[in-house]
Amino acid sequence: MISRVLAADVPAHIGARIRVTGWTHRRRELKSVTFLVLRDRSGLVQVVLPQPVDVPEETVVQVEGVVIASDKAPGGAEITEPVVTLLSEPAQPPPFDLYRPNLSATLPTILDNAPVALRHPKMRAGFSITAASVAGYRAALDELGFTEVHTPKIVGTATESGANVFGIDYFGRRAYLAQSPQFFKQSLVGVFERVYEIGPVFRAEPHDTTRHLAQYTSLDAELGFISDHHDVMAVLREAVAGMVSAVRTRAAEAVDLLGIRLPEVPPVIPEIHFADALALVGADPAEPDLAPAHERALSEWAVREHGSEFLFVIGYPIRKRPFYTHPDPARPACSNSFDLLFRGVELVTGGQRLHKYSDYLAVLADPEPYRGYLDAYKHGMPPHGGFALGLERWTARLVDAPNIRQTTLFPRDLNRLSP
Amino acid sequence: MISRVLAADVPAHIGARIRVTGWTHRRRELKSVTFLVLRDRSGLVQVVLPQPVDVPEETVVQVEGVVIASDKAPGGAEITEPVVTLLSEPAQPPPFDLYRPNLSATLPTILDNAPVALRHPKMRAGFSITAASVAGYRAALDELGFTEVHTPKIVGTATESGANVFGIDYFGRRAYLAQSPQFFKQSLVGVFERVYEIGPVFRAEPHDTTRHLAQYTSLDAELGFISDHHDVMAVLREAVAGMVSAVRTRAAEAVDLLGIRLPEVPPVIPEIHFADALALVGADPAEPDLAPAHERALSEWAVREHGSEFLFVIGYPIRKRPFYTHPDPARPACSNSFDLLFRGVELVTGGQRLHKYSDYLAVLADPEPYRGYLDAYKHGMPPHGGFALGLERWTARLVDAPNIRQTTLFPRDLNRLSP
Repeated sequence: MISRVLAADVPAHIGARIRVTGWTHRRRELKSVTFLVLRDRSGLVQVVLPQPVDVPEETVVQVEGVVIASDKAPGGAEITEPVVTLLSEPAQPPPFDLYRPNLSATLPTILDNAPVALRHPKMRAGFSITAASVAGYRAALDELGFTEVHTPKIVGTATESGANVFGIDYFGRRAYLAQSPQFFKQSLVGVFERVYEIGPVFRAEPHDTTRHLAQYTSLDAELGFISDHHDVMAVLREAVAGMVSAVRTRAAEAVDLLGIRLPEVPPVIPEIHFADALALVGADPAEPDLAPAHERALSEWAVREHGSEFLFVIGYPIRKRPFYTHPDPARPACSNSFDLLFRGVELVTGGQRLHKYSDYLAVLADPEPYRGYLDAYKHGMPPHGGFALGLERWTARLVDAPNIRQTTLFPRDLNRLSP
Repeated sequence: MISRVLAADVPAHIGARIRVTGWTHRRRELKSVTFLVLRDRSGLVQVVLPQPVDVPEETVVQVEGVVIASDKAPGGAEITEPVVTLLSEPAQPPPFDLYRPNLSATLPTILDNAPVALRHPKMRAGFSITAASVAGYRAALDELGFTEVHTPKIVGTATESGANVFGIDYFGRRAYLAQSPQFFKQSLVGVFERVYEIGPVFRAEPHDTTRHLAQYTSLDAELGFISDHHDVMAVLREAVAGMVSAVRTRAAEAVDLLGIRLPEVPPVIPEIHFADALALVGADPAEPDLAPAHERALSEWAVREHGSEFLFVIGYPIRKRPFYTHPDPARPACSNSFDLLFRGVELVTGGQRLHKYSDYLAVLADPEPYRGYLDAYKHGMPPHGGFALGLERWTARLVDAPNIRQTTLFPRDLNRLSP
C-alpha cells in the first residue's frame, strides 16, 4: 500500500498517484461529475469522480488517485481517477452541516454534540491555537530553568480561598478537589526554585457566567529568589511572549482560517497601580477591586496610551488578596501582587508570597489546617512569587469568543456534566 | 547588584567576583576555617569563611565572593572572601540530614515531610528525570503530528471499567473523577486524528500496594487511520525512545547522580503473543492474565533472547480487556491489544479500539449510560487505537525505586491525603 499523503501536502504531488484518507467533508453532485471534498487533520482536498457515489458526509474514506493541477480546487490541486474505499460509515447524518464556512447552531446544541461539532475546521482551529499556546508556555519557562511538576488534585482540607470547592468521598473520608496547585508549587520552590504545572483546577462556581467553569486548565508557575513581584511579572512577560510566538509558528493555518490578529507583547508590559487605576476609570477610591467594566476601560487606555494590549495592574489592596500575599513594604495596605489584563479581561493573577514562617503564623488565625503547607516555611524558603493563567480564557480572548465554553473541548459547569 | 551565578556555573568564573544564592546545604567548622556548602537548583558550591558563622543548615543565603580554583572543592572551584547575607532563616532544623549522600529515613517519614525531603539532591534528581521524560514524550508525539488536549476530570457516569471510582458532590448531583481520558481521547480522534494528553487520573484503589496510587499521571495517546494495533505499538516505540533520549540530554546530571543505566529502545520492540507467553513461563494455558511473576520472567526472557528491556505482549483474551477493545479478526477470542513490559512490570496498556457504532451496540448490554461517548461513532470514526503510560511507574523503573511513592511528589493513597 502506498503511504498516506495529508490533504495539505497534495499540491506537492502533482502528476503522482497518491493515497489520502479522511472524512467526506462535502459531496457535490453536478450533471456530469461529482466532487468529494475530503477532510483530514491537515485540511481539505477535492476529489473528482466521473459518476455519483453513495458516500454521505462524515463517511471515513480512503482515496487513491492521480493529482492534477486545478485553478478551481482548494490549494490548486485535485485528485482524479480515484478509487474510493469506505473505511467506516456514519450511522446517521450530523446534526448540523460541518461543511459550511461557519457552524450555524446554538451554543447548547454545539456543546451537546461536541464530538461532532469539534470536527468543524473553525472549531478545531481554536484548539490548535490552545495546543500551540501551551507548547510556547513550556518552551519559554524551560528556557528560564523551570522544572515541570505534577501535584495532587485531591486535597485533605478546603483551605485556600473563599471560592467553593467540590467535596469527594475519599475512602470514607471527606476530601476536596484542588482549586489550584498554589500550596504545592510554593513548597516546590524549596526544591526546584522554579516550577510550572499545567493541569486541571476545580471551582464549584455556583454562577452561570460566560467566563467561569467548574474545571479549567491552569498554567501555573512559581519562582524563588526574587526581589519582588516585578521579577515574577518579567517571567510572565516571557511566558506570554512564548505563547504568542508559538501560536504564530505552530498554528499559522488556524490563525489564518479564523482571521485573527495576534497581539504584540511589548518588551516591558506597562503597569499601573491599583489606586491610579481606580482614579483613571473614575471609580470610588475606596473600591476594593476592579469591576469588569473597569478592566475593559483600563485595557482601552493601555492601547491608547502605551500601544499595548497587555496591562499590569499592581498594588491591589492586601485585604482583598489571599492570605499568602506579600504586602508592599512601603505601603502595607497594598500588596506586591498583580493582575495582567489582556483585551479587556483579567487573564492572569499573581504576586509575591509570604516566605517567612513567622509571617504565616501572624496572618493565620488558626494555622492548624495549614500544617502540611507550612512545613516548607519552617525550613528556610526564599522570597518567591508566581502566577496562574487560565488557558481557556486566553484562547477565548485570542479568537474573540464571547463565551469560554467555545474554547473548552468538553466544558463542565453548573448544568453540564456531559459529553 | 551583580547578577546571580548558578552553583554549577561557578567553575567557569575563576578569578571573578560573583554572587550566588541558595540554601546552606552543609556547614563544617574546622579549627581555622569554616566551609559552607551552598545548594541551588543546579547543584552545590563550597564557600570558605575565615571565621565561624551562625548559619544553620537550610538557611537561605546570598554569598558574594571571589572564585578560586581548588582541587579539593566540588567542581574544582570554591568561593573565597565571602560576604554572606541571610535571606531567610529556618524556624527549626530539618527532621533528617539533607547533606548526607543518601536520605536515611523511613518512607513514611520521608512522605510526611515531603516539602523538605524532596530537597535532597537524590530525591530531586528523580523528578528531574520525570520532567525530562514528559518533555521527550511530547516532543516525539508533536513530531508525529499529534495535538495536545485537555479533557474533563469530572464525569457524569462511572462507566469505564470495573476499577473503583471516586464519587463527587457536583452541585447536588452525583458525579465521578475520571479514571482515564479514554472516551474523550477516542472521540477526539474524530477531530484531530492524533491526540495526546498528560494529566491526572484517579482510581479509588482499595489496596495498599507498592505500585498503585489513588492519583497518578497518565501519558495518554490515541491515533486514527491505523491498520491494527501494530501501528499503535510503532508510535509507542517512538514515544518511549523520545522519553529515554530526553532523559539522556535534559537530565544528564540526575542520571549521573543516581548512577542509573538508561535502557536502549530497539528500533522494533520484540513482541510475543499472550498464548506463547503463558507457555513460555509455564503457566496454565487457561490463565486469563499474566501474574507479576510472569511479567518478571518474560522481561528476563526478552533480555536474554532479544537483548531488549522492553517486550510487547499482544493478543490478550478479549474477555479480560475493556469493552471497547477490538478483537483479532483471525482469532476473535484474542484481542488486538497489548501491554508493554519494561524491567519486569507492565508499563503501558493499549490496543486497537472498536470504531463502528454497530460494534459498540453489540458489546454493550445497556448503551444508555454511554450515550455521550457513542455519539462520535454515529458519525464516522476511523479505525483507531491508543495507549496509556503511567509516568510515576516509568520513573520508578528507571531509577529502580521499589515503591511508586518514591517517584510521586505528594502521593495519594488509601491512607495518605497530605501533605
